[in-house]
Order: sequence, then structure tokens, then C-alpha cells
Amino acid sequence: MTIDELRTRVWEENLRLPAEGLVALTWGNVSARSDDGDLVAIKPSGVAYPDMKPDDIVVLDLDGNVVAGEMRPSTDTPSHLALYRAFDGVGGIVHVHSVHATAFAQARRPIPCLGTTHADHFAGPVPVTRPLTADEVAEDYEANTGTVVIDHFRAEGLDPMHVPGVLLAGHGPFVWGKNATKAVDNAVAIEQIARMAILSGTIAGGEAPDLEPWVLDPHFQRKHGPAAYYGQG
Amino acid sequence: MTIDELRTRVWEENLRLPAEGLVALTWGNVSARSDDGDLVAIKPSGVAYPDMKPDDIVVLDLDGNVVAGEMRPSTDTPSHLALYRAFDGVGGIVHVHSVHATAFAQARRPIPCLGTTHADHFAGPVPVTRPLTADEVAEDYEANTGTVVIDHFRAEGLDPMHVPGVLLAGHGPFVWGKNATKAVDNAVAIEQIARMAILSGTIAGGEAPDLEPWVLDPHFQRKHGPAAYYGQG
Amino acid sequence: MTIDELRTRVWEENLRLPAEGLVALTWGNVSARSDDGDLVAIKPSGVAYPDMKPDDIVVLDLDGNVVAGEMRPSTDTPSHLALYRAFDGVGGIVHVHSVHATAFAQARRPIPCLGTTHADHFAGPVPVTRPLTADEVAEDYEANTGTVVIDHFRAEGLDPMHVPGVLLAGHGPFVWGKNATKAVDNAVAIEQIARMAILSGTIAGGEAPDLEPWVLDPHFQRKHGPAAYYGQG
Amino acid sequence: MTIDELRTRVWEENLRLPAEGLVALTWGNVSARSDDGDLVAIKPSGVAYPDMKPDDIVVLDLDGNVVAGEMRPSTDTPSHLALYRAFDGVGGIVHVHSVHATAFAQARRPIPCLGTTHADHFAGPVPVTRPLTADEVAEDYEANTGTVVIDHFRAEGLDPMHVPGVLLAGHGPFVWGKNATKAVDNAVAIEQIARMAILSGTIAGGEAPDLEPWVLDPHFQRKHGPAAYYGQG
Repeated sequence: MTIDELRTRVWEENLRLPAEGLVALTWGNVSARSDDGDLVAIKPSGVAYPDMKPDDIVVLDLDGNVVAGEMRPSTDTPSHLALYRAFDGVGGIVHVHSVHATAFAQARRPIPCLGTTHADHFAGPVPVTRPLTADEVAEDYEANTGTVVIDHFRAEGLDPMHVPGVLLAGHGPFVWGKNATKAVDNAVAIEQIARMAILSGTIAGGEAPDLEPWVLDPHFQRKHGPAAYYGQG
Repeated sequence: MTIDELRTRVWEENLRLPAEGLVALTWGNVSARSDDGDLVAIKPSGVAYPDMKPDDIVVLDLDGNVVAGEMRPSTDTPSHLALYRAFDGVGGIVHVHSVHATAFAQARRPIPCLGTTHADHFAGPVPVTRPLTADEVAEDYEANTGTVVIDHFRAEGLDPMHVPGVLLAGHGPFVWGKNATKAVDNAVAIEQIARMAILSGTIAGGEAPDLEPWVLDPHFQRKHGPAAYYGQG
Repeated sequence: MTIDELRTRVWEENLRLPAEGLVALTWGNVSARSDDGDLVAIKPSGVAYPDMKPDDIVVLDLDGNVVAGEMRPSTDTPSHLALYRAFDGVGGIVHVHSVHATAFAQARRPIPCLGTTHADHFAGPVPVTRPLTADEVAEDYEANTGTVVIDHFRAEGLDPMHVPGVLLAGHGPFVWGKNATKAVDNAVAIEQIARMAILSGTIAGGEAPDLEPWVLDPHFQRKHGPAAYYGQG
Repeated sequence: MTIDELRTRVWEENLRLPAEGLVALTWGNVSARSDDGDLVAIKPSGVAYPDMKPDDIVVLDLDGNVVAGEMRPSTDTPSHLALYRAFDGVGGIVHVHSVHATAFAQARRPIPCLGTTHADHFAGPVPVTRPLTADEVAEDYEANTGTVVIDHFRAEGLDPMHVPGVLLAGHGPFVWGKNATKAVDNAVAIEQIARMAILSGTIAGGEAPDLEPWVLDPHFQRKHGPAAYYGQG
């Protein structure tokens, strides 16, 4: 994929955010990594989705130097870059304030794995980070946002390709995948499973039961494992 | 109806799933049985609804041998076939992860019959199955999913044409009807009645009262009984 | 307005039901009364909204004799006719199973008047009827549905032009107005205020406070009273 | 901006209300102030959004004298004018009965600041006013509505440019900004944050934690402070 193709792809995937109901106003962004892994294309800051053109997508190297594009990149760019530097298999990242996933982030609770909808995308609960300290915010808010995510995954021994998303405490979800399309698919999924989990809790009058592990594992594997048999292969 | 007409019909009814808000991404499928009962047409696996064409619909016999179509059928095909083999009057089946019905499946609670909206489609609560055991998952997950449904209906003495749907524990609804159109209608209905039941519980501050049986029965019969007087007859 | 104009108007107002999100499938109907009050035009039974044409609208006298139209009228027609015969100022009636209003009907609770959105359309709580008895259902379900509403309004001393709607226990709302347009407007309103009332209860952790009567009355009067000053009228 | 340009802008921003899902029927209005601050353009009363034309927008001076336009202005005009007279930096005002913000107004609770979505628009909780007294309603309902808001902001020492909105007890939100576009943006935001706050409370099983002040302040400042770095500005 050329850099222009990458920008077009990132532009298309950003347009899916309002189409899928994941964003209001300009509250979300998608980025993607180039095939060689060295460059990242991302939405410009504060631009309305209908006004955006493929040429408005900004291209940077992994240290944040702008390589192509006239506009200022998303303010969340340092968070995206930190995740790309730390998580090898990640080719696309989405940040949104989608309503139900953000509600979990505000409640500072992980999204429990209550069903196969969840297990088809995330091989376990979607974790929530600790909040940033005042010092971390003052020093470099957006870069330290990435660091807190990375530290959480390392401390908990989580594989980012098995659990392709996280909730930032008091903020909202960051979601990823092997490319930008899969990242947006996972952002759609996290919003749906968050909504279902809230409703299941209401029906159960408290906590609904976790999905049996012997169902969770095969469901994730039939879509993502080496012997996956979902789709057209 | 010829096999090509059946494929077109199944294609059309699959397209109703996103139009009716019953699916995100590729999370649902519709199948239908041929007039002679021997063949089943079903959605291909993992294909996006807007990309699907009538020719992509896969046709199989009741033992799962592909008769027509180049694509791999839905991974849920063995569950559909098990239900067709067991339930005589069923001509169409829908599986979706629609939000409110799935929330009940995750909470492992039947949908209670609280009103005439429910009684117009289901002659009693929508039941929830037991979860599959680890052995059942390991042996043949999708086929045993069908078996658990069939066993539940037989053990409870339920008539599948009176209660045309079920919730798979920790998974979501399977819904059926005498043809694919009625099956999708019932999938629309189950999502609406699940949503209303959750809200009624919230309003009542607990469990809302069941519909009086002397209203439930005539409501179901005025649409489905031998003396039905709803519609243009 | 000629009878043909009345049919066109009723057809248009029926099409607003799906456009306003008040119905799924064929779950709702609108009727209107002729200028002289002697005839009623109503949706045909079980016809999908997109397939309906103005000529499909059925015209009946107040005793239920069909005056124009080839199709079978809505099964709810006897309920509509009973209300027209009893409530003088009513020129249009809507019956729907809209989600939030139906949830109140299933919970058998009136919709409390918590705010000015409510007071702009209903001069007090939206009442809920008692359920029909087994004998009333067996005798004439739809006609007795109308009778139970009328009895409730008379027993409670409610003016149907001040409280232009009711919840049928275990069923859903009937809503009316001086013409079909106002009736559909009130059906939109009842769904919105039901939804807001549920959410206000959740926020308050129980019952939210009733709107002060000195706000309720002027709000209703500024739209509906003799000194109304809302709109261009 | 000429007066005709102002009317066109106000017309466009009024049309965003139904497009953003903030209003049903005719339940909302947008106004904007002229560049010199002396005139206000506002929606006409009770006109359906699709029927409205730029010429229907009414222009008044700050004392309520109509300067241009043939129609009767919104009944809420005296409330808008009171806010323009009292709050210097305000260039646009929105009043809607959007569902989730109105639910907070009916529950008489402020919207707590639980996350960065909130902090991006409001530098603290969205306050709720006291209800009007019977005397205030009888004297001049709409003008006194404005007075109650202004008194609340002065008594609490709130800066209307830091907290650009308020909930009227038992009524709904008034929201503003430096121009009409920003005011509608804030009306979109208040509805989203109200919805998220309700859901976070449900997930937490009570009150969700407030956003840390060291996150709240920089988030508001990065969009609105003198050193703002969000957007292309």
C-alpha cells in the first residue's frame, strides 16, 4: 500500500465512525500504520468528518515528525504513537467517546465477558486503566496516556492481539487491530458489548454470570486462531 | 418456489437484518427451507450485507452437503439444520445478536410475557436454554447448540410453532417461522419485547406483572389460530 | 374535507408512525373522523406501511358499517369507534405499541407529569386502565377495550381534551386529538415523556418529583387554552 | 455578518436540532446575536423545521422589539433576551427538550463531571436551577426563567463561558456559546454527557466517581484556554 493509499484508507475508516454511530461532533479518530511499520497516518485535529478529504490525513513517523499533510494531527497522536511503538502486531488504532464504552470508562469498571458477542472479538474482559496522576498530566498528558495503557497490559500479562482494546479511566476506549478496518470493527464491537453488558446487569438485578471459559476460548479461536473457520478464509 | 427464487428470498431477508437494526457488522444470518423440505438456503460466512449477492447464498441438503453456491456457508449452519430436522413446521430461521434479546440470553433469563406485543408473536415466555458443557463444545459446538434447543423444547413440552424462538444461554436468540419472512418478523418482535420487558421492570422497580392468560391466548389466536381475523386473510 | 381528502390525510398520518419511530412491523394505526362527525377513516388490517395506498384506507360509519374501501379495517376498529362515539371533541385517534409508553402500560403505572414537555401535551398524568376481565375479552375484546377507557375517564372525571391519551394495561397507548395530525403529535409526545420519566426515575434513584401545579397549568394553557400564545395561530 | 446572513445562520443552526436528534416535533429553538451585540435573531414559534425558511427567522432588539420578520418569535424569546443582556460573551443560545438532559432537569440533579467528554465542553458540573415560584410564573414566566438562571450563576460564582449551559428544574436545558454553532455543539455535548452519566451510574450501582480535577482543567483548557492546542485554529 502506498502512502496515498494509506491516507485514503484512513480517511474511509474515519468516515465509518459517524456512520456506525460511534461519534458525535468531532469526538474520534482512526490511525493506521504503513506496511513497513515506520509511518502512521491519522485524522487531523478538530475537523468535521463531512469536510475531511484524503489529503487532510496527516502522516508522521513513529517519533511524531510530520512527513506529509498540511494540517495539525489529532491531539491524541502521541497516545497512538506510543501504542504502535509498544505493540508489534497493531496496524490500526481507534479512539472514540462512544456512549456505552465511555460509560464503563467513567464508572472505572472493566467490561465483563458475558457472552459470545464479546468472545468473538476480545478473549476476556476489556480492562480499565488507572487514572493518570497530576504529575503525569502536567508532564505530557497524551504520551503518558499511552504509557499507562502499555504498563497495564505488561503488568497484567495481556496480549494486545487477544484483548484489542482498553478503557482509559474517566475518558473512553482505545481500540486496535491488525489494520484500520479491524480496529473500527472492534470499536463497533466494544460499543455493542458494553451496551449488552449494562442491560444484562439490569435484567439480572446485579451481576450477570461470566461466559463459561470453555465457550469463550473456542469462540475467539474460531474467528482468530490458527484453525479459524469463520468467514471465507 | 425454485431454488433460485429461494436464494433470492433468503438474500432479501438477510438484508432486512441491518435494515431493522438487528445486527452490527456481520453478526446474523437467515436461512429458509425449500418447498419440499429437503434443502436449506443460508447466508455465506462472514460476508458483509452490502456486498452479498443472491448467488452467494449457499444451498445444502439437511445433512449439510452443499448443493449450490461457491462460498462457505455460515458457521451456524449445523445449528440451523438440526432445528429444521427436528421442527416440522419451520420454514425459516434467523440467528442474530440483537442487543436486548442477547442481554436476556446473557442474563440467562427467559423473556416474560408482559403484554400483547409479546402475545401477538409468542404464546408464552421466550425460553432460555442451559449452557453447553465443555464436552459438548469440544465435540461439535454448532450441532450441539441445535441439540440443546431441541431437548429444551421436548423436555418442556413446548410447541415450536407457538413459541417460535429461544435464547441460547450466554449467546443470543434463534428465532423461526413458517417461512423466512415470518422468521425475520419474529426476530424484530423478540428484540422489541425484550426491550419493553427491561423497561417495564425498571418502571415497576422489580418484576412487572405477567399478562393475564385470558388476554394472552386470544391475542395469539387472533393472529395465528384457525379463526385468525388479523390481516387481509 | 371530502372523504377522499380524509383518506389521503389518514394515509399520510399512518406513514408518520414508522417515520417517527413509533412502530415496528405493522404495529399501529391512525384513524380520523369526517368533518360532520359521522364517518371514520382507518388503516386496513396487517398491511405494511410502504405498501399502503390512500385507496386502501377503509371508511366506516360510527356503527362499524363499511362505507368505502375494499380491505378489512384494522382489528382495533371497534376500540376507535367506541372512543369517537363517547368523546365529542376527538377528531383523530392513534394506537401504537411504541416502546416506552408500552413499557408503562405493561408495568401498569401511569406516566407521571415530571416536566413541561409533558405539560405541553397532557394536563396531568397519563392514566392506565384496569385490565379487561376474562368475560369482557370473551364477549367482545376490541369493543370492550374502548369501554374500559371510557369508564376510566368518566369515573376519574378526566376531560379527554385535557388528557388526550391513555395506557391500556398490559397492552399499550391509545392517543387522540382534535384531528389526526394532533393525535400523531400526541403519540410522539407520549413516547418522549415516557422515556424521559423512566430516565428521571433512574437518575433520582426512585421517584422524581412531580412538576409544580403552577407550572403545569400555564404550560398546558399557553398551547391549548383560550389565551394560547404558542405558534402562529 | 449582515442581518440576512445572521438569519441564514440561525436558520441553518435550527435545522441541526432535528438532524442531531435533539428535538421531536417543534420542541427547540436557536438564537444568535448580531456582531455589534444589539440584535438577536430567533426561530419563529411553533413552525415545523422542514417548513421554515431563512426569512421566517425573527429579528429583535434586546428589549424585545421586532426589527425584521413577519412571524411571531419563539415563546421562549424573553428567556433568550435576558441571558444575552446578562452574559456578555454569549453569541448564541439553544433551548431544547433533548431526552437525557431533560431527564436530569426533571430529576432536579446537576450533571456530574465524570469524564473528559464532559470536561471538553463544561468546566464542572452542569447546574440545575431552583423551580420558579407561583408568583414568578404568574408575573412573567419566560422572562423570570432567564432571571432564575442569571441569579443562579451569580450566586454560585459561575462563569457562563466556562459552564455554557444550565438545566431548568422540571423543564430542560438552555445551552449557549460564543456563537450559534458553538451553542448547538454544546447542546449536542450536554445530551451525550447526560446519557453517559446515567449509564455510568447504572454500571457503578450508584454514583460514579468525579473526574480528577487535574484532568478536568487541562482538558477544558486544551480546547478553550489561551494556550488551546485542539483543532486547526
